[in-house]
Amino acid sequence: MNDLSPCPPVPELIERTRSRSGLAPAHIAALIGGHLAGRVPDYQISAWLMAVTCSGLSSAETAELTRVLADTGQCLHLGQDTFVADKHSTGGVGDNVTLVLAPLLAAVGIPMAKMSGRSLGHHGGTVDKLEAIPGLVLPTTPEQVKASLETTGMAIATQSSAFAPGDAALYRLRDVTATVDSLPLIAASVMSKKLATGASVVVLDVKTGGGAMMRHLEDARALAELMVAIGCQNGLPTRAVISDMNQPLGSAIGNSLEVAEALHVLAGGYVPRLNDLVLALAGQVAAAAWPAVPNEVVDARLRKALTDGSAQNVFRTWVGMHGGDVASIDDPARLPRAPHVVRVLTPSGGVVQSIDAAALGGLAGRLGAAREQAGAAVDPASGIRLLVGVGAKVEAGADVAELHTCTGGDAELLAAAQAAFTIGDAPAAEPPLVHQIITGDAT
Amino acid sequence: MNDLSPCPPVPELIERTRSRSGLAPAHIAALIGGHLAGRVPDYQISAWLMAVTCSGLSSAETAELTRVLADTGQCLHLGQDTFVADKHSTGGVGDNVTLVLAPLLAAVGIPMAKMSGRSLGHHGGTVDKLEAIPGLVLPTTPEQVKASLETTGMAIATQSSAFAPGDAALYRLRDVTATVDSLPLIAASVMSKKLATGASVVVLDVKTGGGAMMRHLEDARALAELMVAIGCQNGLPTRAVISDMNQPLGSAIGNSLEVAEALHVLAGGYVPRLNDLVLALAGQVAAAAWPAVPNEVVDARLRKALTDGSAQNVFRTWVGMHGGDVASIDDPARLPRAPHVVRVLTPSGGVVQSIDAAALGGLAGRLGAAREQAGAAVDPASGIRLLVGVGAKVEAGADVAELHTCTGGDAELLAAAQAAFTIGDAPAAEPPLVHQIITGDAT
Repeated sequence: MNDLSPCPPVPELIERTRSRSGLAPAHIAALIGGHLAGRVPDYQISAWLMAVTCSGLSSAETAELTRVLADTGQCLHLGQDTFVADKHSTGGVGDNVTLVLAPLLAAVGIPMAKMSGRSLGHHGGTVDKLEAIPGLVLPTTPEQVKASLETTGMAIATQSSAFAPGDAALYRLRDVTATVDSLPLIAASVMSKKLATGASVVVLDVKTGGGAMMRHLEDARALAELMVAIGCQNGLPTRAVISDMNQPLGSAIGNSLEVAEALHVLAGGYVPRLNDLVLALAGQVAAAAWPAVPNEVVDARLRKALTDGSAQNVFRTWVGMHGGDVASIDDPARLPRAPHVVRVLTPSGGVVQSIDAAALGGLAGRLGAAREQAGAAVDPASGIRLLVGVGAKVEAGADVAELHTCTGGDAELLAAAQAAFTIGDAPAAEPPLVHQIITGDAT
Repeated sequence: MNDLSPCPPVPELIERTRSRSGLAPAHIAALIGGHLAGRVPDYQISAWLMAVTCSGLSSAETAELTRVLADTGQCLHLGQDTFVADKHSTGGVGDNVTLVLAPLLAAVGIPMAKMSGRSLGHHGGTVDKLEAIPGLVLPTTPEQVKASLETTGMAIATQSSAFAPGDAALYRLRDVTATVDSLPLIAASVMSKKLATGASVVVLDVKTGGGAMMRHLEDARALAELMVAIGCQNGLPTRAVISDMNQPLGSAIGNSLEVAEALHVLAGGYVPRLNDLVLALAGQVAAAAWPAVPNEVVDARLRKALTDGSAQNVFRTWVGMHGGDVASIDDPARLPRAPHVVRVLTPSGGVVQSIDAAALGGLAGRLGAAREQAGAAVDPASGIRLLVGVGAKVEAGADVAELHTCTGGDAELLAAAQAAFTIGDAPAAEPPLVHQIITGDAT
């Protein structure tokens, strides 16, 4: 590409994307930089975003867009002096992986830092979950993040507008112009914030299934491959685990309930799928951090740190450092609890064929666990506890879930919760938890 | 469609177009009406315009969009009490058809009225051409149009913002968001202004070839069929003539030169292609106006009105009514004349294989005959006269064209003019003038 040639006018850049003629790096910088500087108006950017949504971008263009978006803000350079891991999930129901993964990695000597968001719509947000711990206030400034990382080996911060503001400006438009659902725009948005963190490795948890943004495996695979390629093209080693979201991840949906579940795992307990996914993601990070250490040694170290209290100790220190109620770690009953627990019974017996994760996620939101609109409050206590998983045998009249609510029972909500469980006669196998791992390593 | 259902939010409407799920009439009205009222911001409309450009609209959606755009402004209802014809050209090089067609139709008893535009870029504008007649000022108000029509049987007015302002608002965005080049948007834009005129019949001159917007016949046919369908679905009988624009229409390019050429035809002269195209278009209008009259009778009436001075008389009256120099009709030497006439010679002899209409149109613009930017002035006198057509035999060193300029010769312009003529040894047949006629009549 000849960066010395004058940049064509914006309509020509839009047309190049629409007709798949390709943009040079200087063109992408002109669009994004011009937008942030107010030279390129929203109506041109939104037309370009729709052109991207309809015609796509090449992998190289997407990697360049990502770099340009990351460069619109400050960079933490976390991995500059020491190995630091970062992690991202594309969003699932009951996804409290970060609450276990960060202290686990810190416990085995791999610092992990991540920016997290708040809930919106169906999906919970790690920030809301952690704020269910009484008194806890998440760090927001780079200095706080670095201090947290140095002291405890882990840092979870609220996503700040100081990082990739160009992405925030794009997202504001995407949200109102039906251009959210674009693979290159999703990938660039996620990875621009990862580049801005400047970690040593990123592990991506790309969810697929009924409760995920990517319902189909092939879409999840395309997104994962694109994000891994973007990371690698920008010098950020990136690995993706494509994990199943056809049922809620663990057995808890809702902020306080998910914290309690995570604390159970940190106390050495086992939660189906949650423990396994944490170990799969941690394994990928460890493989990047310790390339010479055999897999079985890595796995043993990780399992030990979950059961010997060392991961729990990291989390305890971290919670205390950020003003949270440390006692609740050993006594989760101190976490906010809903005044009403309503039992969800199955009217018919048989085998649990499927559990509608999206429906239960939406239901938990309606109970107060998530917000419909940005800026609204969430109820830390409300949510859903699942008592069975796919493949379980149940008798007619048995409990399959609990609704934790502040307002008491509601026949319509109860019926919706019941309807999320499909009970049948056929034997039902759980879907595999990890569909594929994409490392981006040379093969 | 159920117009009683509440209209979905704008991002959902944009998404419906992007995914080709279809918009109901109420949805289109909500988008266009909301935009004009300031409720739907430019950035949402431009994303929708790009979604249309990428995913298209159905014929029914396009017809509805056209009606909604027409309804954003006033309607002239010209055809309410009497039969009135309207005409539109998609734009060509040397296209002065309106200057002959309007007085010809008026002379045979079919009133014709049209709104015309100014030149921009390669294409001339009828308004600029007529203003080459000293003193002439075109009407702009509905009252002036109606008075002109009643007195002379013809009306040519400057396009006013009172008609289809919703289309003007869309076009303003299309021009800067690379969404000009969309068949449904082009068709809706043209036909919304035709609906606002409220004529009894519209004849469309859809140009195809190197000097036209639609370079390929299949694209021209698709546009013609769509516009005819839009007209018919909105109760406006519409006929399209797909005509050749692989060489300039007549032998003149430039405002004063094209007026002089039209005056030559009105005085009974013959200009290859121009006379034939005028007769083809007039024939379509007459077929709609006089469905019972045999074609050969129509043709004879039209030819007679061109040669017996009756069309010329209409034009003379019309020019006089609008302040123009009537004497110039019989003495075209009174029209503005360029001080320099530069001969373009062919270096080699042979047969004229092709004449690059787009190149000559651009060259005439550079001589001053058209404007690059809206609002700029044009030079009425400058332009190009062609001395040969495709298929003509020329000797080496013979004149093939004249450049009429205010600034004198320029070696580069002269070379460019020469290069527009391809001379070869093979026999060359003129392309057919009329490729197809689409009437929209039931077949």
